[in-house]
Amino acid sequence: MRLLVIGTGGTIASAKTERGYKAQLGIDEILERAEVKRHDGLIIDCWDLLNVDSTLIQPEDWIKIGKAVYESTSDYDGIVITHGTDTLAYTSSALSFILRNLPIPVVLTGSMLPITEPNSDAPGNLKTAIRFAMEGTPGVYVAFRNKIMLGTRVSKVHSLGLNAFQSINYPDIAYLKGDKIIFRHKIQPPAGEMVFDPALDPNVAYLRLTPGLSPETFLAVERTVHGMVLEGYGAGGIPYRGRDLLAAVARVAEKKPVLMTTQALYGGVDLTRYEVGKKALEAGVIPAGDMTKEAALTKLMWALGHTRNLDEIREIMKRNLSMELSPELL
Amino acid sequence: MRLLVIGTGGTIASAKTERGYKAQLGIDEILERAEVKRHDGLIIDCWDLLNVDSTLIQPEDWIKIGKAVYESTSDYDGIVITHGTDTLAYTSSALSFILRNLPIPVVLTGSMLPITEPNSDAPGNLKTAIRFAMEGTPGVYVAFRNKIMLGTRVSKVHSLGLNAFQSINYPDIAYLKGDKIIFRHKIQPPAGEMVFDPALDPNVAYLRLTPGLSPETFLAVERTVHGMVLEGYGAGGIPYRGRDLLAAVARVAEKKPVLMTTQALYGGVDLTRYEVGKKALEAGVIPAGDMTKEAALTKLMWALGHTRNLDEIREIMKRNLSMELSPELL
Repeated sequence: MRLLVIGTGGTIASAKTERGYKAQLGIDEILERAEVKRHDGLIIDCWDLLNVDSTLIQPEDWIKIGKAVYESTSDYDGIVITHGTDTLAYTSSALSFILRNLPIPVVLTGSMLPITEPNSDAPGNLKTAIRFAMEGTPGVYVAFRNKIMLGTRVSKVHSLGLNAFQSINYPDIAYLKGDKIIFRHKIQPPAGEMVFDPALDPNVAYLRLTPGLSPETFLAVERTVHGMVLEGYGAGGIPYRGRDLLAAVARVAEKKPVLMTTQALYGGVDLTRYEVGKKALEAGVIPAGDMTKEAALTKLMWALGHTRNLDEIREIMKRNLSMELSPELL
Repeated sequence: MRLLVIGTGGTIASAKTERGYKAQLGIDEILERAEVKRHDGLIIDCWDLLNVDSTLIQPEDWIKIGKAVYESTSDYDGIVITHGTDTLAYTSSALSFILRNLPIPVVLTGSMLPITEPNSDAPGNLKTAIRFAMEGTPGVYVAFRNKIMLGTRVSKVHSLGLNAFQSINYPDIAYLKGDKIIFRHKIQPPAGEMVFDPALDPNVAYLRLTPGLSPETFLAVERTVHGMVLEGYGAGGIPYRGRDLLAAVARVAEKKPVLMTTQALYGGVDLTRYEVGKKALEAGVIPAGDMTKEAALTKLMWALGHTRNLDEIREIMKRNLSMELSPELL
């Protein structure tokens, strides 16, 4: 059995500096500190691809990481990627669109406490990730706090607590009990050839709908990007009383995709439920269904990387590419 | 005992139309359908102030609602406000800044299912709200699913489920058991005269930090508003690698407030923890601490309503006005 661990930095690779925690350690040192055992027949190779706080990760890095994975799948039985937690869910979502029909498990993990600190969660998270990379099903996953979650369904829900990630609107896939992976939700292994499809357009902005949001602000954002995510309230809808945001959205939605997500962590959007939602649909808004905010954003970037045709983008956004979406809820 | 119920619309007042659910019913009819009993000695007056889906609620409405409450406190022992759930947490936060040292409980509630539907949660939520308005401590609260939460600490976390609200980074205040309010967390009653202080500047935008966010988009938003909330990742920080957002933020933060919140639902921001956070602090970003996104936005609007002086705004944002903030975590 042969595994690859790709390092990108993050808290898991951090040590204390005078300027606060900063990514510093290489993967070799992380594995050594985590006391990862390379027992008989288990070879673990290391690749220090990046070493940055994940606040600094940019869409171009997703492609770099994706390429590293793509070029390694034939040599390894599983791949672990260590990553800062801040944008981990964006990277796991983006990788799920860039790399489809993966033949092996690709498991992202990180930690809330640096591996250089006592009681760090890094060794436990690494153990879960490595074990799933050895025994798990193909695809992109996130391992955190004994849980294995789908890469397109996770969000960081806690900025401090160790149980920082949750699978949103989707069950956890598996968990680690002792040294064993226990499956909770079976994934259909992908059929067909692996596809490395890294066309991404990063020119997407994500604006939260808030009371008082002016059409001017919305239009100012729109002029700087090729597509927008508008994070609505609850089931979704766009205000038109007092300030006519709806008219501005309708004008933009004629030429650029405007995707609607929800501020609520759970439940997704349903634009067919309320009058305000129906009006948003009529204005041309594309509903994000039950996608996470991270999956919605990265999928829109991926769609825009492939086409600027609005009908085609709409069709892509409504298709379930990597288990990110329950199309029946649209 | 004399209570006032102020209606503003929302799902609780909705009935099915051909165009989806729409706010229609008056408070009298809502109370009747909820079978609220006006037993001996309990007088409940009704006031239909607004009747809109709360997606449509604007900052000017907060002032209107606040004024209605302010003018009624001397005539009533408690006030209930029915409201759509979508922006309920914004309204409860804004009211907490507009109205301080309230002498009576003011309890916002709503429902996820219209009162016109079987199994609606409206009667239960109304019962909890009314009971707390009768027996509770002064201040602004939200009653939902048997729970009483502080108005400045709630967020809508589910777009579909009935347990749609949570108290974020703060304990629930009380719950309803049978017909009894059980306190879980004691609130210090406010001292001093009631203050109605409705100066609000709605010109605030709320932008989510996402990988690839360009300085151009940030600056385009900035030009349309008097202050911004930037929703960072995890503990907080601003990227500067590839795209130098940090430099753009630093430039803006010299003249306008840039408040940093976190995308993570729980835990708040701590800009002293990581190097990327320290750099954000040095760039002039104001940390939102453990405030909810709704409290952070409405408090910034309120601060801007009182001053455009950056030092004064910074001082206001760091002060705990309505239990919205744990200043010791800043």
